[in-house]
Amino acid sequence: MKTEVQCGTSLLEAAHKAGIYLSSICGGDGYCGKCKVIVDHIEQVQSRPTALLTPDEIRQNIVLACQTTALSDVTVTVPKSHTLQTCQILMDATAHRFSELAGEVRAGVFEFDPLVQKIFIEMSPPTVHDHTADHERLYLAIREQIDAPIMQTGFRILQKLSRLLTGCEYKATVTIGRRDQTTEVIEIEAGNHSGRNFAVAVDLGTTTVVAHLVDLTKAVTIDSEATYNSQINFGEDYIRRIIYAEENDAFDEMQNRIVHDVNDLIVTLAARQRIDLQEITTVICAGNTAMVHFLLNLDPTRIRREPYVASAGFVPPIRAAEAGIQINKRGLLYCLPSVAAYVGSDIVAGVLTTRIFTKKGISLFADIGTNGEVVLGNRDWLVCASSSAGPAFEGSGVKHGMRAGAGAIERLSILDDGSIEYKTISDTHPVGICGSGLLDTLAELFRNGIMDRTGRFITNEDARLTEGDEGLQFQLVPAANEHNEIVITQADIDNLVRSKAGVFAAIRILMESTQTKPQDLDGIYLAGGFGNFLNVRQAVTIGMLPDVPAEKIHFVGNTSIAGAKTVLLSRKALKAAEKIAGSMTYFDLMSHPKYMDEFMMAKFLPHTDLLLFPSVKSVKCEA
Amino acid sequence: MKTEVQCGTSLLEAAHKAGIYLSSICGGDGYCGKCKVIVDHIEQVQSRPTALLTPDEIRQNIVLACQTTALSDVTVTVPKSHTLQTCQILMDATAHRFSELAGEVRAGVFEFDPLVQKIFIEMSPPTVHDHTADHERLYLAIREQIDAPIMQTGFRILQKLSRLLTGCEYKATVTIGRRDQTTEVIEIEAGNHSGRNFAVAVDLGTTTVVAHLVDLTKAVTIDSEATYNSQINFGEDYIRRIIYAEENDAFDEMQNRIVHDVNDLIVTLAARQRIDLQEITTVICAGNTAMVHFLLNLDPTRIRREPYVASAGFVPPIRAAEAGIQINKRGLLYCLPSVAAYVGSDIVAGVLTTRIFTKKGISLFADIGTNGEVVLGNRDWLVCASSSAGPAFEGSGVKHGMRAGAGAIERLSILDDGSIEYKTISDTHPVGICGSGLLDTLAELFRNGIMDRTGRFITNEDARLTEGDEGLQFQLVPAANEHNEIVITQADIDNLVRSKAGVFAAIRILMESTQTKPQDLDGIYLAGGFGNFLNVRQAVTIGMLPDVPAEKIHFVGNTSIAGAKTVLLSRKALKAAEKIAGSMTYFDLMSHPKYMDEFMMAKFLPHTDLLLFPSVKSVKCEA
Repeated sequence: MKTEVQCGTSLLEAAHKAGIYLSSICGGDGYCGKCKVIVDHIEQVQSRPTALLTPDEIRQNIVLACQTTALSDVTVTVPKSHTLQTCQILMDATAHRFSELAGEVRAGVFEFDPLVQKIFIEMSPPTVHDHTADHERLYLAIREQIDAPIMQTGFRILQKLSRLLTGCEYKATVTIGRRDQTTEVIEIEAGNHSGRNFAVAVDLGTTTVVAHLVDLTKAVTIDSEATYNSQINFGEDYIRRIIYAEENDAFDEMQNRIVHDVNDLIVTLAARQRIDLQEITTVICAGNTAMVHFLLNLDPTRIRREPYVASAGFVPPIRAAEAGIQINKRGLLYCLPSVAAYVGSDIVAGVLTTRIFTKKGISLFADIGTNGEVVLGNRDWLVCASSSAGPAFEGSGVKHGMRAGAGAIERLSILDDGSIEYKTISDTHPVGICGSGLLDTLAELFRNGIMDRTGRFITNEDARLTEGDEGLQFQLVPAANEHNEIVITQADIDNLVRSKAGVFAAIRILMESTQTKPQDLDGIYLAGGFGNFLNVRQAVTIGMLPDVPAEKIHFVGNTSIAGAKTVLLSRKALKAAEKIAGSMTYFDLMSHPKYMDEFMMAKFLPHTDLLLFPSVKSVKCEA
Repeated sequence: MKTEVQCGTSLLEAAHKAGIYLSSICGGDGYCGKCKVIVDHIEQVQSRPTALLTPDEIRQNIVLACQTTALSDVTVTVPKSHTLQTCQILMDATAHRFSELAGEVRAGVFEFDPLVQKIFIEMSPPTVHDHTADHERLYLAIREQIDAPIMQTGFRILQKLSRLLTGCEYKATVTIGRRDQTTEVIEIEAGNHSGRNFAVAVDLGTTTVVAHLVDLTKAVTIDSEATYNSQINFGEDYIRRIIYAEENDAFDEMQNRIVHDVNDLIVTLAARQRIDLQEITTVICAGNTAMVHFLLNLDPTRIRREPYVASAGFVPPIRAAEAGIQINKRGLLYCLPSVAAYVGSDIVAGVLTTRIFTKKGISLFADIGTNGEVVLGNRDWLVCASSSAGPAFEGSGVKHGMRAGAGAIERLSILDDGSIEYKTISDTHPVGICGSGLLDTLAELFRNGIMDRTGRFITNEDARLTEGDEGLQFQLVPAANEHNEIVITQADIDNLVRSKAGVFAAIRILMESTQTKPQDLDGIYLAGGFGNFLNVRQAVTIGMLPDVPAEKIHFVGNTSIAGAKTVLLSRKALKAAEKIAGSMTYFDLMSHPKYMDEFMMAKFLPHTDLLLFPSVKSVKCEA
C-alpha cells in the first residue's frame, strides 16, 4: 500500500489517508500508545519523545505513528501483533459498502423517538417575577419539547447546572436518555450542539462483531465496520469460552476482549467519519445471551448448566463508561432484551425486524450464526429454539472460509459443462469463501452429483477432487500467480452439513410441536452474516429450510443489527422488543425427546425423508 | 465529671460511661485519631503505640483515648481544640430527652411506606420448567411484596446478583429505595437482614444542626443529637457565608464543614446505639435553601443576588456517598423540596407537620431560627415570606445565649416581689439561656417595666442593672461558687427585638396582602429550637405574634426535623411535601414597599400601634 503525503504529516494521518485505520484511542494526542508501527530506516522519520515505548521497542525501530513524521520516503510496517487486526480492518475499509444497510431505520413503521436525543433549549432567564429554580426551569423547558413525565438528573449535572446556565444566558443543549419510563438528563452543554448526536449499534456475534454508526439527528446509518470477536482464542463457541473463563477465572479478560473489540470498531468509525467520541452518546447492542453477559461481566456460568439460567434477560441501560465502552463519558449503553439463555437479543431483534410478530399468517425466522436460532409464529404466538449449529456458515472451521469482505466468493455455480463460475466481493481475485458462497458450493456439489446424499465426495467422479493434507478436497479455484488455490475439504462439508442439520431439526421440532405444515408457512426469513447476495433456493436444496416456493423465502441479512438500530431510533420499538422477549415460548432442544432423531435424519442431503423435499433433485438422483 | 471504671477500661469507654461522647469515627480501633485527650500524669496510664500523634502532642501528654487505659486514678482533659465541640456533645448527652420527639411519625395520618425499605424475599430457585433469569426473578419477587411498577437496578448489583442468589439459595434481603416514581434495588444481601434498617433525619439549620436516628422497621425515633453548624466561623447567616465562599473560592470547604457536622452526628448516634454505619440506609434533610446547596455543593451564589434564584428547589435523591455522607455506601440522601431561595424545605416540613395545608380555617406558621419564615394559609392557598430575623433566639449573638441543652435557662419569670424564678434543662446550675428563656426574659423585663417600649433599659430602676463591658446589663443569676453570673445586655435585647420585629413585620405583610384579620386566624403554630417548654403567651407580650387568645397558639418545636421524618416514613408525605412546595406563593419582602415601615413599627414592644395588642400591658403602661 502506497500513499503520498505532505511533508510534516504524521504517519497516523498518512495511514488513514491510505485507508489503514490504526487503533488510536487518544485521537493522535500521543498518550494511548496504540498506534505503534515499525519504520524501516529510523533516519527517514522524526519522532517526538514518548515514554510509551520500551528500550526494546526503540531498538526495533518501533515508533508511535501519531508522534512521527516522515522526512523522506519511508516504508512503514504494522507490527506482527497488530497484523491480524489491521488486516481485517483493511478489508473492512471496503466492507461497509456491502454491509447490511438494508434493514434501515424503520422510522416509517415505528415513530421516530430515539432513546437518546439532544435538544436545544432557549429558556427565559429568571426575573424578579419568575424566580423558578434552575433545575425546575430546565425541566419545564424540556417538557415543552418532549414527553417526559418522570425525569432524573445526575448529581454532577445538578452541581454544574447553575453556573452553566448563567454562562450561556440560558441557551443550552440537553442530552436526554430514556431509561424504562424515566427520562434522564445525561448531559448539558452551553449553546446549540443539537445537530451532532451519534450512536453505534453493535451486533455482538460469537464469531463476528459488527458495528453501524448512526446519525441520530437524521436517522440514517452513515458507516459500518466489522471485526472478528477476539475472544475466539478462548473457544469457538461461547460454551467453551464460559468453561475457559470459569477454569481460569478469566471473566474480566473475557470482558476486556469484547469491550476492546467494540471500542476498536467505534474508534475506527469515529475516525473515519471525523466524529469526536464525545459526540457518540449511545451504544446499543444485540447479541446472544452469553455475549451480552461477557460484555457486561454478568455471571454467565449458569448459562451452560442445567437449568440454563441467565443473570439477566432484561438488562437496564447503564452508563457505557461503566462497562468500559469509550463514547461520551456520560453516554448510555443499551442491550436489547433476550428470551432465554440460548435465545438472545439478536433473535428478538430479528423478530422485530421481520415483523413476524405483527402478521396474521405463520412465518419462520432462522438466524444462522455460530448458533442457529429458529422462531416460528405470528401475531398471536411465538415459539423458539436454538441449535448449536457451529460457525461454519460464518466461514469459521472451514479451510478457506472467511466472512463477507473483499475477495470473498459470495456466489458460485457449476455450469452444465462442469466449469465453475463465481463472483467475489469487490470483484477482486478470490481469497476465500463467505457464507453465501459456502451455501452455493454445498448445493452445487450435491446438485451436480460430486457429493452424495450423506455429504461424502464421490471419488474419481471429478479431476478437481484430490487428496489434500486433510483428506479429500475439491478445488474451486486453481492457483494463479501469487494466489493460492481455493478448495473445499471433506471436513468443511461435514461441518456445513452438521450446521444445516441442526437448524433443520430445530425447525422440525417447532413445526411439529405447533402442528404447522410447510404449506401453512406464509414466509421464511433467513438471517445471518452470509454476505449480501444469497440464493435462498440453495438453502432448500441442501435441506436447511423447508421446501416452500422460493418466492416465500426472504434473505434478510443481519437482522440483529437492523433490530438494534430500529430500537435505537424508536422507544416504541423498544417496547415492542420487550413484549416479544417477554412473550416468546422457548423449547429446550437438549431435553427434547425427538431432537436427536430429527438431527440424524437431517444430516442427509436434503434429508432422509425425500418426501419432505419434493422439489429437490440431484444429478445423481436423476440418474 | 468523675466516673469509676474497671481496670483495663479504655479512656474512651470511660468517657462514654461518664456521658462524654468523644468523636471516634473508627469506633475505637485506633486509626481515626479523633479521640485525643490530655492526661495529667502520663505514668498513670498505659497507651498502645500509635503513629497518629506528633512528637509535640506526645510531649503535651496527649493520648488517644481508645488506645489508653488507666493504671490508677487519673485526671483527663479534653484538649482545647475539642472543647467547644466536646462541651456541646456533653450537653447533648441529655439533650435527646428534651429534643423534639413529639412530632413523631405520622404513620396514622400518612400511610407507612418508607422511602427506603429492606425486604426479605424467598424465591423458588430456577428449574428446567422455570428458567426465568435471576434479574427478572428478583423483580417478580419484589413486586409480590411491594408496589413497584418501574424498577431500576445499579450495574454493580446486577453484576453480583447471580453468584449471590445461588450462594444463598435464593433467600436474600433487598434494600429498595424510592426515587420519584421509580424503585431502585439499592443493595442485595444473602439471608435475612430485614430487621435492621435505620435512617437519620437531619435539620440543617444555619446555626444548629439536629439529627434524629430512626428505626425504619418500627417507625420510631430512637435517639437524637445536635451540634452547632461549624460553618459559623464563615458568617453567622448564610448570606455572609455565600459571600465568603465566593470571595475565597471556599465552596468545597463550606460543603466539607456541613458534611462533617452531619457525619459527626451520625457517627455519634450510631456508636451510642451500637448500629453499624452500613445499617443506616437513608439520610433525609430539611433546611433552608442555602444550607441544602452547601451540603450538596450546588451553586448558591445567585441566592444572594437579584432575582434570587436557587440551583434546585426539588433535589432528586442521590447516593449519600456522592455528597460525602458516611452511611451505607449505596444508601440514599433525600432533601425535602423548597419553595424559593429564602423559603427552604424546613418550612415545607413545617407546613406538612402542622397540616395547615389540609385545614379549612386559616392558620399562621412561624419558624424562628436564624431567619424567621412565615406561612399563612389553608387547604386552598398558602403564602409565605422570610425575614432575616437573625439567630438571637437560637442563643447566638446573645452574651449568655445557648441552645437548648443541659444548664440552659428555659423558663424565667419575675415575681411580684421582683425576685427571679427560673428553671434549667436537666435542673443543673444555669450556664446560659436558651430561646424560650430569652423570650421569657424579654417579656418579663418589659412586663415589669425594667425596659421601656423601645427596648431600652430604664436606668436606676433596678439594682441588678449595672454598667458592664458592653454597656448596660441586667443580672438574671448572680455569680455563685465557681459559676459566673448570667446577664442580659442592652445589645442582646436589641438583637432579640430586631428578630421579633422582622417576624412580626413579615406576618403583617402576609395578613394584609390576603386581607386576613387576627380574628380570622384559627391557629398560630410557632416553631423553632427554643427549647421544649415555651410560654407562647410571651410571644404575644413582646409583639412577635398577633394578639390572639393563648389557646390558639401552639408551640410545635422543631417541625423541620419532624417533617423530614414524616416524609422518610411515607411516600405519600413526600408527595404532599412536593405539592406544598410547588403551590406556595412567595412574597419577596426586600422588594415589598411596606416591609420597612412595618419593621420599624414592630421594633417597639409590643408595637407602635397598641391597638394591635389590646391584651398586652406592661407595668410601666399601667403606671
